[in-house]
Amino acid sequence: MRVLGIDCGTERTGYGIIDSDGRSHRLVAAGVIRTSPKEALPGRLAAIARQLRAVVQENRPEAAAVEEVFHAANVQTALKLAQVRGAALLTVAEAKLEIGEYSPLEIKTSVVGYGHAEKHQVQLMVRSLLGLKAELEEDAADALAAAICHATHRAAGAPR
Amino acid sequence: MRVLGIDCGTERTGYGIIDSDGRSHRLVAAGVIRTSPKEALPGRLAAIARQLRAVVQENRPEAAAVEEVFHAANVQTALKLAQVRGAALLTVAEAKLEIGEYSPLEIKTSVVGYGHAEKHQVQLMVRSLLGLKAELEEDAADALAAAICHATHRAAGAPR
Repeated sequence: MRVLGIDCGTERTGYGIIDSDGRSHRLVAAGVIRTSPKEALPGRLAAIARQLRAVVQENRPEAAAVEEVFHAANVQTALKLAQVRGAALLTVAEAKLEIGEYSPLEIKTSVVGYGHAEKHQVQLMVRSLLGLKAELEEDAADALAAAICHATHRAAGAPR
Repeated sequence: MRVLGIDCGTERTGYGIIDSDGRSHRLVAAGVIRTSPKEALPGRLAAIARQLRAVVQENRPEAAAVEEVFHAANVQTALKLAQVRGAALLTVAEAKLEIGEYSPLEIKTSVVGYGHAEKHQVQLMVRSLLGLKAELEEDAADALAAAICHATHRAAGAPR
């Protein structure tokens, strides 16, 4: 199945698309949607949605995986992130994609086998699982990790 | 000017549209969009967006006013609310409306003249300002209060 992973962020939203049978995964596309800190939130949400729609249009994923939002150290940051996530969820829901929501712990566990893995360990495992030599942008790697997590859960018969 | 106010909520999202010159206000439309607690968040966001778009389509407001989201007592509730807000902001941004964001304090102050007003005082003043005899649903009254706040700020030359 073809899965789109999304790593939401106000300034950088990562996306990554894979083809996967739940065991072996192949990179289809990945990148980072950047928005200007000078622009107000509504305009940034519109820019993220527009670019996500273009990615969906071009690559036709069947499912989307999005990380759950948690109350992190900074509540204001979490609230901003949640608004981006709402816009992203709306975009993929309207594109009629199957949607999986996973905790950071579930995503890390499915990729690294260890829920408290460091950022660079996630990046390393994503590259290894996809057979990539080149570095990945951090947000794109996180998005691909979410996609891998969904594909793995889906193959195990336990989509979320 | 014609202003749409939106009071975001996961289960009930209020909306209210007024015509206003900043001093006198007239009710155009108001209501509450309900979503099923049984449905997952993405589907609820899509339902809210679809109905907001229909309201905009039918009434053609020029501006939208949305309350800012704050870290309330319950962080999980605030994070859910923020996701609805993100979807609502995306919807009005894509409809090319001018967008005003106001704190609960600003909204209450502009309607009741007192930032720590109670819910029923807001409801009472909204009805008085709009010359309404009938009761308003609470979420619709809150949405109308946001619309009045924006119209007032706008007329005072201080849109937000």
